Amino acid sequence: MRLTINEQRFLNTFTISSSIGTTDKGGLHRLALSNEDKQMRDIFKQWMEEDGLSVRIDDFGNMYGRREGKLKDAPAVAFGSHLDTQPTGGRFDGILGVLSALEVIRVLNDEQYMTDYPLEIINFTNEEGARFRPPMLGSGGVAEVFDKNTIYSKTDDNGHLYEEALEAIGYKGNEENRLGQIKNFVELHIEQGPILEKEEKDIGIVSGIQGMNWFNIEIKGATNHAGPTPMDSRKDSLAAAAEMIVRAHALPNQFPGLLTTVGKVDNYPNVVNVVSGHTTIKLDIRHPNDQVREAAIAQFKSDIEAIAASSQVQVGITEDWDSPTVHFDDEVLQAIETASNRHGYSIHTMFSGPGHDAKYMSYLGKTAMIFVKSIDGVSHNEKELTLEHDLVKGTNVLLDVVLQLANQKYKEVKNEEVKTSLTN
Amino acid sequence: MRLTINEQRFLNTFTISSSIGTTDKGGLHRLALSNEDKQMRDIFKQWMEEDGLSVRIDDFGNMYGRREGKLKDAPAVAFGSHLDTQPTGGRFDGILGVLSALEVIRVLNDEQYMTDYPLEIINFTNEEGARFRPPMLGSGGVAEVFDKNTIYSKTDDNGHLYEEALEAIGYKGNEENRLGQIKNFVELHIEQGPILEKEEKDIGIVSGIQGMNWFNIEIKGATNHAGPTPMDSRKDSLAAAAEMIVRAHALPNQFPGLLTTVGKVDNYPNVVNVVSGHTTIKLDIRHPNDQVREAAIAQFKSDIEAIAASSQVQVGITEDWDSPTVHFDDEVLQAIETASNRHGYSIHTMFSGPGHDAKYMSYLGKTAMIFVKSIDGVSHNEKELTLEHDLVKGTNVLLDVVLQLANQKYKEVKNEEVKTSLTN
Repeated sequence: MRLTINEQRFLNTFTISSSIGTTDKGGLHRLALSNEDKQMRDIFKQWMEEDGLSVRIDDFGNMYGRREGKLKDAPAVAFGSHLDTQPTGGRFDGILGVLSALEVIRVLNDEQYMTDYPLEIINFTNEEGARFRPPMLGSGGVAEVFDKNTIYSKTDDNGHLYEEALEAIGYKGNEENRLGQIKNFVELHIEQGPILEKEEKDIGIVSGIQGMNWFNIEIKGATNHAGPTPMDSRKDSLAAAAEMIVRAHALPNQFPGLLTTVGKVDNYPNVVNVVSGHTTIKLDIRHPNDQVREAAIAQFKSDIEAIAASSQVQVGITEDWDSPTVHFDDEVLQAIETASNRHGYSIHTMFSGPGHDAKYMSYLGKTAMIFVKSIDGVSHNEKELTLEHDLVKGTNVLLDVVLQLANQKYKEVKNEEVKTSLTN
Repeated sequence: MRLTINEQRFLNTFTISSSIGTTDKGGLHRLALSNEDKQMRDIFKQWMEEDGLSVRIDDFGNMYGRREGKLKDAPAVAFGSHLDTQPTGGRFDGILGVLSALEVIRVLNDEQYMTDYPLEIINFTNEEGARFRPPMLGSGGVAEVFDKNTIYSKTDDNGHLYEEALEAIGYKGNEENRLGQIKNFVELHIEQGPILEKEEKDIGIVSGIQGMNWFNIEIKGATNHAGPTPMDSRKDSLAAAAEMIVRAHALPNQFPGLLTTVGKVDNYPNVVNVVSGHTTIKLDIRHPNDQVREAAIAQFKSDIEAIAASSQVQVGITEDWDSPTVHFDDEVLQAIETASNRHGYSIHTMFSGPGHDAKYMSYLGKTAMIFVKSIDGVSHNEKELTLEHDLVKGTNVLLDVVLQLANQKYKEVKNEEVKTSLTN
């Protein structure tokens, strides 16, 4: 018999989580290391202890619950996500990955099931980047992408230091508690996009996280009166910026799979009857293939030079962020596919647009992610919604994947069973 | 002998004007009805009195200096402009029109020259619209474009009423002092554009003021994550706005002589990695021919509907301002041409892009304007500059034009003289 989760028990943990930092519109306001975050952490810690896990906190405030396996000194199979939210965030983003991890432990406890490899469930600090920038500081610290001083010296909008905030809520733990090398990391997350819904598939097998770049594009023209200045005498920085935005938006026609967004524009002097003299736009550009993305960037740079020349303005482009594509591990991806097949859930292999803690965890062990549907693709929004049956499906898959990865023989045996059933 | 101005005396009045409200960068900060404006007004009033003019102030604070003519009860030939400036304005915009008017009076006084028609020189209140919006409240009040209550209830950014500001500096005069029907109005002004410089001409004969419209264009899409949202699922309001800006900028290719400016953009949420959900742009559109402008507007409205449809966004357009073209009077234009020819100044007939007090004065009598060069076409800027010899040329032309308009036989006689000299 295939193990499945206790749906009611699992969904109950959402009811509790959704009550901590609830907004008027039914979303969550639970910024990293805030009082709301502390409340949620305290409850999660209590749950882990009640479920017999060995709880520890590291120096970034990341929380771990460990369940030993049969193999001594073996690397752990880790899984989890984050419990913090955006200022007006949803009830599922990140939270699903943590609460599903807890439910997996509970099922194993019910069954008195002892895995070969030890298990660790994790709640990472400040994944959202809403209070302390950039995002994913907790997982990035563990993976040594950011050093301790860098993280401790981050300040929120009120000037409070990360380290102070950690101490204030009593979650400044020890460096020796950090996650080390692991066998695997698995993160169940809501898609935050519309693809699974559009494709009518249950489970997203996330084969990687798209690489991305952020560029700052500064256009300098000359302010002039709208009335007396002939069109051909103008150096209109906003008109040039508009051409660049249109060009950026059209790039995916030339580079399929590319995502281009100009989400920010700042214009000076920004007056109805004054030709603009100084406009800044920001470009977000993503593609799973680093070479394609680089080719698109080179094309865009050449295009904006041409636009600047024909518009009689000057343009400068600087890179604010360069994040290469992460490819997840084939073995873990295969485990997710196998698990989905066993449950009869339909699958769709896809890349993640947004970053996730799993990105940095892939530096410490073989990693992949599982996605479930987001209604209308909405996230970072109080309207964010994943239906209960999708929460359950994702968690059943996570359970199976953990069993496959944490047991030396589990996968083989079960695969044979599946093959047998398929031939019938 | 042709009458010419006293250059040194004339330029001296600029030295004094330029010392009242001087900015660090050598421009002027002399907002309407401010203490600086009062200082300048007091000096101008003293000058007019010293020059034997009969000074009066109307209920909008407009200042008049009247010099009687031979004809009793005849309508006046009026000329002037405004002494107020932008917050960081130049030393010539408006000021030239007032100081040149004073110099014309002084030349006539030197010569003990009695015109047939009475003369009135004028300093209009709040032409700039920098303190109280809209611009040209003083001349608009006299022309009954705005009623008294409307003007008096205008407030500046600090909440001070126009009426209070008038009283505070002691320039609230009487309604019966307003300018009535006049024979003519002539305004000498700096071009505020680059055309005379480009065409290498001395004198701009301004045949009218371009009609213009302001539109507010509101685009509603849907905010989404830049990462997970496929291009074809987006409702990107900024991308659509950019297409509309590009389209607006290209309209003059289809409608020659059209001026289109999108100088203002406001974008929400304006975050680098969020697809924009709500963007507002403002369009300023001008053309000397009202029918051409209307055709261009109709075309643009149709274009933005198409852009909105293909971008999956909604668009709404509302008109903020509609100002039809004003055509100046042929007789006055001819007088300017004649005057320029007499002095051997090269001429260029052109329309004015910006509005001027002369626009409203054209409702009260036969009106036209004279332009002189603005270096680099710059105005509303501390760098604004008109060279001394151009200030002098413009004023010599004004003097001659006033003589032509204010004397029943002057024009004919002088034209014959010119013809004679041309045939030699």
